Parts: sequence; structure tokens; C-alpha cells
Amino acid sequence: MEFTAQQIADILNGKVQGNPCVTVNNFSKIEDGKPGTLTFLASPKYTQYLYGTKASIVLINEDFVLEKETSATLIKVPNAYVALAVLLEVYNKSVRKKGIDSMTYIASSARLDRDSIYVGAFAYIGENTQIGANAEIYPQVYIGDNVQIGKDTTIYPGVRIYSGCKIGDRCILHAGAVIGSDGFGFAPESDGYKKIPQIGNVIIENDVEIGANTTIDRAVMDATIIRNGVKLDNLIQIAHNVEIGENTVMAALSGVAGSAKIGKNCMFGGQTGVVGHLKVGNRVSVGAQSALISNVEDGKHLLGSPAIDVKRFFRSSLIFAKLPDMYKQLDKLQQELELLQKQLNNDNDETTNAER
Amino acid sequence: MEFTAQQIADILNGKVQGNPCVTVNNFSKIEDGKPGTLTFLASPKYTQYLYGTKASIVLINEDFVLEKETSATLIKVPNAYVALAVLLEVYNKSVRKKGIDSMTYIASSARLDRDSIYVGAFAYIGENTQIGANAEIYPQVYIGDNVQIGKDTTIYPGVRIYSGCKIGDRCILHAGAVIGSDGFGFAPESDGYKKIPQIGNVIIENDVEIGANTTIDRAVMDATIIRNGVKLDNLIQIAHNVEIGENTVMAALSGVAGSAKIGKNCMFGGQTGVVGHLKVGNRVSVGAQSALISNVEDGKHLLGSPAIDVKRFFRSSLIFAKLPDMYKQLDKLQQELELLQKQLNNDNDETTNAER
Amino acid sequence: MEFTAQQIADILNGKVQGNPCVTVNNFSKIEDGKPGTLTFLASPKYTQYLYGTKASIVLINEDFVLEKETSATLIKVPNAYVALAVLLEVYNKSVRKKGIDSMTYIASSARLDRDSIYVGAFAYIGENTQIGANAEIYPQVYIGDNVQIGKDTTIYPGVRIYSGCKIGDRCILHAGAVIGSDGFGFAPESDGYKKIPQIGNVIIENDVEIGANTTIDRAVMDATIIRNGVKLDNLIQIAHNVEIGENTVMAALSGVAGSAKIGKNCMFGGQTGVVGHLKVGNRVSVGAQSALISNVEDGKHLLGSPAIDVKRFFRSSLIFAKLPDMYKQLDKLQQELELLQKQLNNDNDETTNAER
Repeated sequence: MEFTAQQIADILNGKVQGNPCVTVNNFSKIEDGKPGTLTFLASPKYTQYLYGTKASIVLINEDFVLEKETSATLIKVPNAYVALAVLLEVYNKSVRKKGIDSMTYIASSARLDRDSIYVGAFAYIGENTQIGANAEIYPQVYIGDNVQIGKDTTIYPGVRIYSGCKIGDRCILHAGAVIGSDGFGFAPESDGYKKIPQIGNVIIENDVEIGANTTIDRAVMDATIIRNGVKLDNLIQIAHNVEIGENTVMAALSGVAGSAKIGKNCMFGGQTGVVGHLKVGNRVSVGAQSALISNVEDGKHLLGSPAIDVKRFFRSSLIFAKLPDMYKQLDKLQQELELLQKQLNNDNDETTNAER
Repeated sequence: MEFTAQQIADILNGKVQGNPCVTVNNFSKIEDGKPGTLTFLASPKYTQYLYGTKASIVLINEDFVLEKETSATLIKVPNAYVALAVLLEVYNKSVRKKGIDSMTYIASSARLDRDSIYVGAFAYIGENTQIGANAEIYPQVYIGDNVQIGKDTTIYPGVRIYSGCKIGDRCILHAGAVIGSDGFGFAPESDGYKKIPQIGNVIIENDVEIGANTTIDRAVMDATIIRNGVKLDNLIQIAHNVEIGENTVMAALSGVAGSAKIGKNCMFGGQTGVVGHLKVGNRVSVGAQSALISNVEDGKHLLGSPAIDVKRFFRSSLIFAKLPDMYKQLDKLQQELELLQKQLNNDNDETTNAER
Repeated sequence: MEFTAQQIADILNGKVQGNPCVTVNNFSKIEDGKPGTLTFLASPKYTQYLYGTKASIVLINEDFVLEKETSATLIKVPNAYVALAVLLEVYNKSVRKKGIDSMTYIASSARLDRDSIYVGAFAYIGENTQIGANAEIYPQVYIGDNVQIGKDTTIYPGVRIYSGCKIGDRCILHAGAVIGSDGFGFAPESDGYKKIPQIGNVIIENDVEIGANTTIDRAVMDATIIRNGVKLDNLIQIAHNVEIGENTVMAALSGVAGSAKIGKNCMFGGQTGVVGHLKVGNRVSVGAQSALISNVEDGKHLLGSPAIDVKRFFRSSLIFAKLPDMYKQLDKLQQELELLQKQLNNDNDETTNAER
């Protein structure tokens, strides 16, 4: 899709300086802008590139003062970066993919809005699965039987959604994410383990983003639940029957063990771990590589493995590095004390002798 | 497939109370049971849902006393949860997928039992590969050349098995698992690293379950071996030439470095690490986020990074949180001791002076 | 492809002992060598298998002294293991796959050298994507629009490369790796988070190896950069705008947070973490499970979470295990000191009394 400078200025309530009829169909970085693309200047350190850029349009702060001429058409806006974000949203909506490629497998009982949906090549959609309007199902995605997917949701290549799971509206699932694999449940027996059937599912509410290669296991029974607005980074493991509260964000390589319940608006650093069956309150912040091993109240800031108050952890870890010195000091103190004890006893003996 | 209440009671040696001819073709949770489904009541906290459930059949403990009527047909069994597990096994066997979808790639030299096997759309099966009876190969699975897969094994969507690997009977490989990728081996050279060819393979024995997106590297030579009954959770890394002993279970995000040998019946918590070339005994238990950095004898319970005895770790980490206090106390003791020394020396001086 | 013993000896500058016309077309381990294969004897512990091996050719050190006859043809070389590596390289080049399978999706605007390239079944190649000579694109790979891939690069099954990313020459990307997924960037708002558009890309230079299921996010703007010769193991997370310097190697399950810059020739153990925006120098070595939380100078050897000097860490962690004893000892010292203080005060009182 092509836009003129004037059309873009109208979207952004900006002012065109230059040719309002020049058109663009893509974005570029200012330092390697190409004709037919739009770029932006938000940071002074890129000002040097403004005058030589080959981009056709540059978004620029309205208070920016040109030092010399530029061949690009400028669109002046209050904040070039914010304007870019607005424009990207409009653009992203305009470039949502549509249509159904050849070489897809769509079960005849699947219900999807063929007029607004995208289904890429080699995607598989199972029996009785429903997919909402404007959804994008990229190539090589697997969606099992009886799955529900909301509208405006994007499923990137190679995502696997096992049967019976539910995904809400406006979600984004990145490549390789696995939703609804069996929970890790085994009953010990005399000669090994017996698999405990995992007959629940995974429910992902609205506006959730799931990172690449992240895995979310289905519940033993009931559901593993990811609430509205949760953002999970790449390579995260969410075990069976976990619940993650609204708008909680979690960085990469973290793991939440079975049946843990995490509150709203929490922030987890990378490589954190949460022990099974814990309850974690709202607005809890957990530093990277921490391990939560007991319930956490609202609003706590924790760090460490096991996690303690973040300030306490930093103080303790500073002293951890001095432990060898402390150890020696303690030893020395002990010796000096013993010396002192002897000395005192000798003095007393002497005193006693002297008194005789 | 449909079953009557009587058929199910016969399978479970249970007793029908209600209509023995009512049929079901799926499972449901008691709180949202639908007609045509079977549910169960095992925990008292769900008793409230029994009388209103729309499920057609409810498995119930034989000692349960009805307080009022229910429209569902009951099947009374000694233990409703155990009965459910038995039933799920029967059911799972009955619903194993069969048949070969269109749009698969099966090399002409591959040998597989076309009457009992399932091969989903977009699956790839390489040259000379053999697959046992009743195996399920889900859509988009990649199986390279010269691979052997046993009978009754299930390979979920998007699993990748590199050439030359061997998988046993009754295994389950979850979506996105990678078996047989190159081990991480490079020889340093003056200007970087030279790849060391990885010409071994991976051998997975029987009754093994491999989690979603878990990776198991092929050996430099010989084999990386996963013994009978091992259960690996999601997102685990097993490096080249590792051996994991029978019935060992390992939780998510753990990593085992090259050539480590782990014994039988061990349990590893999540995010644990094992250093290369270690030998870990049998029945070893390792807490979450631990690092094993030296050999471990049979039966040890370890925790920490580096891992030490679990009780000792907990005692030490309690004191870790008190380190700032200890540090201050030590400092204060030092000062007091010095004061005491001075005082004593003064006394002695005084005494000495007094003696003069 | 078949080679005669003489051809192989010529490649290796080795000497044939036995039939120079015997041919092989594959490798085998000496303990289960098959006719038509080549094996090697590099370690004395396998000498026992030499005399009974069914392999047709054995590479052997030229100083090895035969104790009895063997039916295999020997090729004598200065170092059998090095010779094997050389041969494997020759072999790997000779067995590079070629040709384009049926059931692939290749956009009409994609440019690729159809004479030398391999594209496996169910692979997807997007608009305007360019792929160099001799590249191998395995089955089920996804390559988005406007991607550039160099020559002699191998992309294993199920790799996903989002649009706009660039991969150099002679790279190897293992199964399930994801290149160019959105960086994890969200701006907090009153009612949750707003996604920050990620419009940069990923640039992977030459001779890079990326492990199975590793994920590398695209930059907010500009590029996430993996320099020449970098080797990343499996299940690693590289966040947006990170740069990894030449010939740095990183073991599995490590994570590097956004905008961190890592130098050349570094070595990272498994499960390490690097905080966002850090600068890490050249030749830095970081032990497993460490966390870098501040900038690191060239040549440092670090360990721990947070990471400190490796020797200091080991000394401190030895004492960590003794903390309960230290705690008791400190307590006891305190008591003894107090006793001593009392005693001294009493003595002084007595002295004082005595003086009166």
C-alpha cells in the first residue's frame, strides 16, 4: 500500500514541508533510507543523516531547526517517535495478511472467516476449530481439534496449539511457541512412572503476547490460564494449572511450576523460577535468576535464589564476596580472645599469687 | 467412538445406577459437563456440581452417599480418580490416530506399517527410516534419513529428528522437541573455531517422554543415550554424549553438559545444571536452580549453585540473609576486643606501675 | 558417493595397506563397522575392535603396530582423528543436498540459485528473499519476505526467519531456531502495556552457528547483530539490539537482555544471564549460571549471581557452606567476650576495692 505525504500528515495531524504528493510504501532507517520509504528523526545523534537521506519522507519534531536543505519531504509533528508509533499501528493494520495460501490443511468442520483471515502455506487447522475475523495464521502453524482463536490474533510460523485450547482477541504468538502440551505429571510406581492423563486445556485471554519457543502446558484438569494483557518473553515454561494474573510481564527463560498462581501487574526478570503451588500477590517484582520458594505478598521486591528482599540481597551479596576475609577475621578474633582469656587468667593467677 | 454406561462399568468393574444405555463420546469437567460426556466426582469440593451437572455419566466413589437425585447416570467404583485414569488409557488407545494425510513427504525407501500408522499433513519422513506399528506422526514432523522409531510411539507436531537417531517403543515426544542436532563442539584455532564433526547419534529407549521444545544433541561419536522410562520436561538441553539413567525425571529449563552420566531414578528440579563429564549416582535428588560441579554419590539430596547438601544449603541461605548483621557484629566484636585488650594492657600497666 | 581406499589416501596423503580398490560410501564406529564403510582407530581403548571390524577401511596412526591380521584395508596417516576430521569435511561437502523438493512455497520474487541450492518439502520462502549458492534449506523452514541468506549456509528443519533479517555465508542454523521475532518491548499505560513496534532486524555475519530452538529477537530499530564466527548453543535467548562480538561462544540456556554489547572471544557457560545495556569486554570468561549485572573489562574471569572474580567466588562459596558454623562461632565469641568484659570489670572492681 502506498501513502502520500499529505495522507500521512492528515493521519498524524502534522504539517507537510515539501512535496505533499510524494508516496511511500515502507519504513527505513534514516542512515540508509531508500526512495519510496518513510523515516524519522527523533534523536539528535542521527541529525547528520538528515541532509543526505534518500528516504522520501522524514517525520521530524516541529521544533527542529533545519541547518540546510534536504531533498526529503518533511512532516512536522509534536513528537516524531510517538508519531512513528501511531503510524506503525496504522501501517500494521493495513498490511495484515489476508487470503488462504494453497497447500494448507483445513478440516472441513473448522469455522473461519475466509474473507478476512490469513492462512499461510503448510498450516494445519483441525476439526471443529474456530478462528475469529482478521486472524493471521502464518505458514506451518499447527492448530489441533476444537481450538478457539479470537479475532485480530496473529499466530507466527511454527506455533503449535494442541486440541481444546482457547486463545483470545488481539493476541500475538511468536514462532515456535507451544500451547497445550501435556503437563509434566507422573505417578511413581514400583518399576518407574505412570503417566497421569492431562485432560485440561490452556486458556489465553485477550491482548496477550507469547514469545518465541515459549511453552505452556495444558492442565491436569480445568485450565492453565494466562489472563488479559500478560506478556511472556521467549523460552518461558508455564507448567500445568498455573494462572498468571492480568498485565504481568515475564522475561525470557523463566519457569513457573505446576499450580502456582501469580497475581496482576507483576514483573519477573529473566531466568526466574517459581516453585509449584505458590501464591504470588499483585505488583510483585522479582529480579533475574531469582527463585520464589514461598508465598509472596502484594508489592514485594525480591531477588536471589531463594529470593529475599532485593535490598537485603544486594547487601548480603556484597558481603558474600568478603566471606573469606570474614572467615579469617573471625578466626583471628577467636585466637585473640583466647589469648586474652589466658592473659586474664594468668593475671588473675598472678594477682592471686601476689595477694598471697 | 461411543460407549454406553454399561460398557464403561464393565471395563471398570463398576456398578451402574441409572440408565445403562446412555452413551458418551468425550470427557468433561463436572462443573461444565455437557450431554454426551462422562465426568467424575473425586473431591468433596466439587460435590455441589453433582446434582446440576448436564454430563450424561458420572464416575463416583462407591461409598459416596447421594443427598438428592441427579439426572446423570452414575457408575460406582472403588476410587473414581483411579477409574478415570484407567478409562483415559482405554480411551486414548481407542482414539489413536490412523491413516496417512494427503500432502506428506514419505521417502520411497522408508518402511512403515501403513495399516496402523498415522502420518499427519506436511510431515517429512526420510530415506531408509523405519517406523513401528501404531506410531502417530503428527503434522509437520521432520524425521531425517535412517531413523528408527518404535511401535506405539507418539511424535507431536513440529518435532525434528535428525538422521540416524533411534527412538524406542511407547515414547511420547512433545511439539517442537529437537533430537539429534549437532553437539556443541569446536576446536579453537588462531582465528576462531573449527567445527568438530558430530557423527554420533541419539538413542532414546522405551517409555520415554520428552517435553515441548526440549533439545537433545547427537554425540561426537557413539551416542547420547536416554534410558528406559526417563521423563524430560519442556525446554531442557541435553548435550552430546550425555547418558541419562532409567526412570530419571528432570524438570523444565535444566541443562546437562557434554559427556555427563546421570544415574537411575534421579529427580532434578527446574533450571538445574550439570557440568560436563560428571558422574551422578542413582536416586540423587537435585533442587531447582542447582548446579552440580563435581561427581555425586548415590542417594544424595543436593541444592544450591554450586550444590551442597540440601539441609546445609537451607541453613546457610537463612544466614546469607543475615550477613550484613553478622558483618556488623563481627566488626563490633573486633572493636570491643581491641578495647578490652587496651584496657587489659592499661590495667597491667597500672598493675605494673602499682607494683613499682 | 563412493570413494576407493586409494582416493581417500590421496586426499589425506596417507598410505594404503591392503586392497586400494575397496570402496566405501559412509562412516561407521569401529565396534559396529559394516562393509562399505570407513572407520578409524584413534584411541587405544578401541584397539580390541580393530581385528574383528567389518568396516572396509580403517584410518590408523602410522606408528600403530599391528598385532595380528585384519581383513580391513588400512590407511596409515600421521593422526587418525585429524584425518577423520579432514575427510568428514570433504564428505560433508560432497553430500550437501541439492535440488528443490515438490510441495515447497517459493515466492515468485525470491531469488535463489536453483542449480546449486536445496529446498526441502514444506519450506516457505517469502517475497524478494535472496538465497546464496549451495545453501541448504531443509524441510519446513520458514523464511519471510526480504530476507538475505549467504552462500554455503545450512538451515535445518523448522528454523523460522522473520522478514528483513540477514544471514551470512557458511552459517549453520539448527532446527527450531527463531531469528527476528519481535523484541520484548512494552510501554506501561494506565490499563496495561502498549506494544512498542519492533521495526529493526537481525544481522548474522559469516561462519556463525546457532543452536536448536535458540531465539534471536529483532531490534527495536537498527539491528541485533551476531558477529563473524560466533557459536551459540541450544535454547539461548538473545534480546533486541544486542551485539555479540566475533568468535564469542555461549553455552545452552543463556540469556542476554536488550542492548547489551558483548565483546570478542568471550566464553559463556550454560544458563548465564547478562543484564540489559551492559558492555562486556573481550576475552571475558563467565562460568555457568552466572549473572553479569555491571560492565565487565577485558579478560576477566567471572562466576556467580551476581558474578565476581571466579577464584573469589569459589572461596566464598566454600565458606557459604560453613555459614551456620560461623554464625554459631560468632555468637559464642560474643558471649565469651561479654563474659571476659564482666570478668575484667569485676577484677577492676576488686582491684579498685583492693586499692581502697
